[in-house]
Amino acid sequence: MSILVNNEWKIIQDGFSKEENRFFESLMSSGNGRMGLRGNHEEDYSGDSLKGTYVAGVYYPDKTRVGWWKNGYPEYFAKVLNAIDFIGIRVFINGEVVDLAKAKFTNYKRELDMKESVLRRSFTFISADGSEFDIQAERFVSYASPDVAAIRYSVSSKSKDAEISFLPFLDGDVKNEDANYNEKFWDYVSSKATEESSYVTMKTRKTEFTVSAAFTWNVIGADVVTKSAVNENNGEYVGVKIGTKVSKGATVTLEKYVSVVSDRYYEANKIEEVALKNAKNAKENGYSKLLEEHIAKWAAIWHMGDITIEGDVLAQQGIRFNIYHLNCTYSGDDPRLNIGPKGFTGEKYGGSTYWDTEAYCLYFYLGTQQPEIARSLLVYRHNQLDKAIENAQKLGVKGALYPMVTMNGEECHNEWEITFEEIHRNAAITYAIKNYTDYTGDESYLATKGIDVLVQTSRYWASRANYNKMKDVYMILGVTGPNEYENNVNNNWYTNRMAKWSLGYTVESLKLMKEKYADLYKAAFERLGLTDAEVAQFADTSSKMYLPEDKELGIFLQQDGYLDKEQILVSELDKNELPLNKKWSWDRILRSCFIKQADVLQGMWFLNDQYTKDQKIRNFDFYEPRTVHESSLSPCVYSIIAAEIGREEKAYELYLRTARLDLDNYNKDTDDGLHITSMAGTWMSIVHGFGGMRIKDGELCLAPFKPASWKDYSFRLVYRGRLLKVNVSEQGTTLLLEEGEAIDIVLFDKKVSLKPGIEFKS
Amino acid sequence: MSILVNNEWKIIQDGFSKEENRFFESLMSSGNGRMGLRGNHEEDYSGDSLKGTYVAGVYYPDKTRVGWWKNGYPEYFAKVLNAIDFIGIRVFINGEVVDLAKAKFTNYKRELDMKESVLRRSFTFISADGSEFDIQAERFVSYASPDVAAIRYSVSSKSKDAEISFLPFLDGDVKNEDANYNEKFWDYVSSKATEESSYVTMKTRKTEFTVSAAFTWNVIGADVVTKSAVNENNGEYVGVKIGTKVSKGATVTLEKYVSVVSDRYYEANKIEEVALKNAKNAKENGYSKLLEEHIAKWAAIWHMGDITIEGDVLAQQGIRFNIYHLNCTYSGDDPRLNIGPKGFTGEKYGGSTYWDTEAYCLYFYLGTQQPEIARSLLVYRHNQLDKAIENAQKLGVKGALYPMVTMNGEECHNEWEITFEEIHRNAAITYAIKNYTDYTGDESYLATKGIDVLVQTSRYWASRANYNKMKDVYMILGVTGPNEYENNVNNNWYTNRMAKWSLGYTVESLKLMKEKYADLYKAAFERLGLTDAEVAQFADTSSKMYLPEDKELGIFLQQDGYLDKEQILVSELDKNELPLNKKWSWDRILRSCFIKQADVLQGMWFLNDQYTKDQKIRNFDFYEPRTVHESSLSPCVYSIIAAEIGREEKAYELYLRTARLDLDNYNKDTDDGLHITSMAGTWMSIVHGFGGMRIKDGELCLAPFKPASWKDYSFRLVYRGRLLKVNVSEQGTTLLLEEGEAIDIVLFDKKVSLKPGIEFKS
Repeated sequence: MSILVNNEWKIIQDGFSKEENRFFESLMSSGNGRMGLRGNHEEDYSGDSLKGTYVAGVYYPDKTRVGWWKNGYPEYFAKVLNAIDFIGIRVFINGEVVDLAKAKFTNYKRELDMKESVLRRSFTFISADGSEFDIQAERFVSYASPDVAAIRYSVSSKSKDAEISFLPFLDGDVKNEDANYNEKFWDYVSSKATEESSYVTMKTRKTEFTVSAAFTWNVIGADVVTKSAVNENNGEYVGVKIGTKVSKGATVTLEKYVSVVSDRYYEANKIEEVALKNAKNAKENGYSKLLEEHIAKWAAIWHMGDITIEGDVLAQQGIRFNIYHLNCTYSGDDPRLNIGPKGFTGEKYGGSTYWDTEAYCLYFYLGTQQPEIARSLLVYRHNQLDKAIENAQKLGVKGALYPMVTMNGEECHNEWEITFEEIHRNAAITYAIKNYTDYTGDESYLATKGIDVLVQTSRYWASRANYNKMKDVYMILGVTGPNEYENNVNNNWYTNRMAKWSLGYTVESLKLMKEKYADLYKAAFERLGLTDAEVAQFADTSSKMYLPEDKELGIFLQQDGYLDKEQILVSELDKNELPLNKKWSWDRILRSCFIKQADVLQGMWFLNDQYTKDQKIRNFDFYEPRTVHESSLSPCVYSIIAAEIGREEKAYELYLRTARLDLDNYNKDTDDGLHITSMAGTWMSIVHGFGGMRIKDGELCLAPFKPASWKDYSFRLVYRGRLLKVNVSEQGTTLLLEEGEAIDIVLFDKKVSLKPGIEFKS
Repeated sequence: MSILVNNEWKIIQDGFSKEENRFFESLMSSGNGRMGLRGNHEEDYSGDSLKGTYVAGVYYPDKTRVGWWKNGYPEYFAKVLNAIDFIGIRVFINGEVVDLAKAKFTNYKRELDMKESVLRRSFTFISADGSEFDIQAERFVSYASPDVAAIRYSVSSKSKDAEISFLPFLDGDVKNEDANYNEKFWDYVSSKATEESSYVTMKTRKTEFTVSAAFTWNVIGADVVTKSAVNENNGEYVGVKIGTKVSKGATVTLEKYVSVVSDRYYEANKIEEVALKNAKNAKENGYSKLLEEHIAKWAAIWHMGDITIEGDVLAQQGIRFNIYHLNCTYSGDDPRLNIGPKGFTGEKYGGSTYWDTEAYCLYFYLGTQQPEIARSLLVYRHNQLDKAIENAQKLGVKGALYPMVTMNGEECHNEWEITFEEIHRNAAITYAIKNYTDYTGDESYLATKGIDVLVQTSRYWASRANYNKMKDVYMILGVTGPNEYENNVNNNWYTNRMAKWSLGYTVESLKLMKEKYADLYKAAFERLGLTDAEVAQFADTSSKMYLPEDKELGIFLQQDGYLDKEQILVSELDKNELPLNKKWSWDRILRSCFIKQADVLQGMWFLNDQYTKDQKIRNFDFYEPRTVHESSLSPCVYSIIAAEIGREEKAYELYLRTARLDLDNYNKDTDDGLHITSMAGTWMSIVHGFGGMRIKDGELCLAPFKPASWKDYSFRLVYRGRLLKVNVSEQGTTLLLEEGEAIDIVLFDKKVSLKPGIEFKS
């Protein structure tokens, strides 16, 4: 059995078990935003393993599998691609291949150092004759040089002199486990193996992305007695076999310097040159220097983004795990990339982009990175506006409907109740524009690009809503809200409310532009073919949007007819019935009152300043007891509102539900990869929930409390050119403006003037 | 180009076109309830063709294909199986193989004689050297001996002496075009070919149905000069090659006597014996005698079931085509069989049984056959009650929910909005019990078997409905009604109304049994574990069932919120938008007010005597203009109600929409097979619609009118031991009691006493 060790900075697997290999492979994933990989073994492992190496933005449009076709379904959907395996090193000890599925071994340890973003492994290999060898492997995917990775692999011979050979290789013959029709997604392009270096270039079918991987190597601690290039499987497998002799007690170390590049960044016909050159440069720089630069980059990330928790090592490990993986997944330097739900940790779910990006992840990057990073996420959607317009056309509606799931702007999902009906995603995308603008104070994105997104999605809403003459209101029929345990409902409060808001925000933004950016305003009007009449229609649709509510209960109604359902609370259910999505048939879930994830409450979070505390209390008290939180995106929103209405224990209890979701394998699916996007929700629970962070009327507001079981906690905020540290302990809240100019903020409804370097204590 | 010739008794294809081959193959299908086949060529045909031979009840559980799995989906679904090809005869003329996809030919004619149920083909084959041969083929699947088929295949040499060889064969190596994963469904068991006879036995995978086909042969008009057994493809292909010499002007005829049997009727290890014996017996009886017995059986069918229409040959051909195929599909002698939507004419749609059987087909068999035939359809459902109970359990509901689509009682469908939510099917199944009992006057099925179906489905309804305290009503949430252009709606009027009726009918039936069949009543109470409290609950749920209506418009509401939709009429749509199911995305269809098929009107048809003419007019006038009739089951119900409310032209116009659905290839899908179940709807349009036939208070009622373009029309009714002929002409209605004792019926609300053999004229 393996043990997952509690540690503030590390994820440590102590001992090995075949059954848990995929689980730990997922946890130990690493990445630099440009590429990433699971915590697979470098040497052979013939047991159960999900091999996974992923290159950002390189995808394959797999043919859709569907039971009953519906008009409007996409025929293909973009799939994250398992790419060239570049970590592989076959290891021969006196001719015996090291393979932990077959060999005897002891002292197994796999350890991800999150501070340095380095994966280390060590074990003692016991050869057939009983002699022992200590093996240590260390690798990192450089955050400083995003095309480069490096591996250090050492073997110490403990019992006797030995012949140790390494075969570092590149393998282009890889598959996706989740291919719908068991197809191979890659074609061979070229490769070459020499004694000094090797490369292999592969091209994806259909999408024709070219990816090249190259490596060079170095051996330390022993003489190389033989070396010979290896080229197998029609060139798809290349490497070099290196023979060494190691005396008893001595250690031989192989360094493998890898570069992986794609034609997304370099010309396709030159990428093998680039890859080879990168690999050679890396070798010249040497392992230590590369590692140093890499650690320095991570130090900067942690400096801005770390959260410390004293007195609760599990919580500390959990939040760092989340911050770590969010940074592995997205580095924000390329607006064509986004945040896949599994990042670089598994294949599951086609596409890379869900509304998770805008509704959850954006908050994290806004708070912990310079604004350009978050802005890249907005630009991504702006770049895909044309495809969103096509998508709406396909469905017979005007304006733009962003896809539910996408890679390149095209819809990747095919469940009619989601693909066609979960249209609230449009509002999250426009809300992100407000969120970014309010937090950063930067109106330039809104005025130059965002306005197009606002207008086109407003056109969608105005066209999608239907005017009900009898009631003199606009209604939105046939939708699925954030709570996917309701399908094809009429007038989902959240959807209507956010459409109303979105239309109104577009009108407001146009007004703002007219006043402050007259030229941009004029250009936008022309570019978009806007008329005053259309803007008036936006305003009218917004003002007459129907919002279901129950006046007696004082709550907003999740949708028309919600109160006709049998009203049972989750607490009244037999525990054996949970989780509903495993225990109940789909129709039973649908007709029940149970809620998968924040729906009305999601609206009260986004439009937080438009509702009173009383309204929040009534809606929270009605909906939370009916919510099963069977989405990892659910608890954080409830936790934030609970904190806001003074339910500190409840806020903490909800925070706990996702704080260690993958580490504790809560959903029994960590094997498939990690829940990257929901990690941002945990960060939000702490910063927006416990910390009470909001932007109100252009001001940063805080209202922290401390969970009872923690000694203290701190987080930093990157805010308008400043770095602010917030520490919360029993003694109260301490604020320190670590970088940037003096600023006024609001702490517990009182204005506080912060001066650089001077602590403020409440 | 082929021409479909207008003819009152025949379907004639004059001329041949490759593009239309599948279409005519479908039209020319034949069957005897036990087996059936498409109108494929006997000789080789290498062009486009859907080869199809089907053995009733022999199915394969193909692995489900699904995009996104939902709890409760079946993993397998039963598929109609293409079985051993038994019609095959390779024909060699001077060594040249006859294959109309490759050879020259003229005078092609394919003709289905519906009166005799015989398929005839003739053409002149032109060999490579230009010499000509007249070829005639004739075959039938015996209605008198349901395991037997016979073929007569003649070649006349017109130009010169010739060597004519035949290779009659059986081919067990067949596939389904619609296999989800391109699997083969059959395994080889055994075969033998001798010069006199051959057989091949195959077994289905998984379900292990064993089917054996055997044949013997006879040659007339020429000497057999060579003969040799053929055994190829590991025994899956067996036959005998027969060489003859034919002088110029002479004709050689091959007779092929086939028997096909399955282990559904005979012991698996003896079926090849049985098949061989049947084939030999057939040969001994001779072709003419077999044909004579077969025609006699069809004469009896036509005697009871024919409808004549004078003055409209297309209408005459259309209705006979429907009557013919309904009888080919179902002969009612085996209650384990049912009526597949494509019968024996194609592969499309898994399963054999939909609610079509009870809602449409039952009326036809009740009116045109002895009651045992219709009763078999009821027994089929009673036999599957246990599986329906399992099905309900799987979905977390009490009682029995019959599957949407089934072969053996297990659900075959996997679209959540249909499979789990189109639960109104339960009511059609119980309604059929009432329909049968009212029409035949036979209460024995109800009292011995039907009561179990009634109670178990009532348990389902009582459990599935939820009590709404605030409104003191029962509601049924999350359903799909007959109108499948609405999914997951609340309180579909039809579903609620039929559930209310069904619960009430169960209570009534128990009361009836208590009074008339006390022993059966007591036994049923015990067998079903009933209590008075449970019966009271049925009554309460029935009486407090919520039925949405709009009092202002005076209509029943299709479902909650229907009037919130944008109210547009079909006549206001651009014609290019139709059919909606091809032109609009699914969500757009769902949120529109457009109706696929009779929904509220279906309820007004089933519960016809419970609504006033005014109510029918208001609901018809509201819903018909919103109905796109994109199900072939839709127009007949509207046509019947239109006739009832005096809209004779509208009734006729609606009748026309399905009268020749397949003959005119209205939906462009006749290639796949025929729409068997909707054929019953056309019969209903004439008998219930134009003829106004109803059962009211135990009496047969008629109220006929004549469509203006017809000279006259007549139909017969098999009714309670009588045969009644109804003729409707300009002069009025003539009734003739052709068989059975005197009876009082109601004609246009007036009682009429009919005496045997004495015509009554209105």
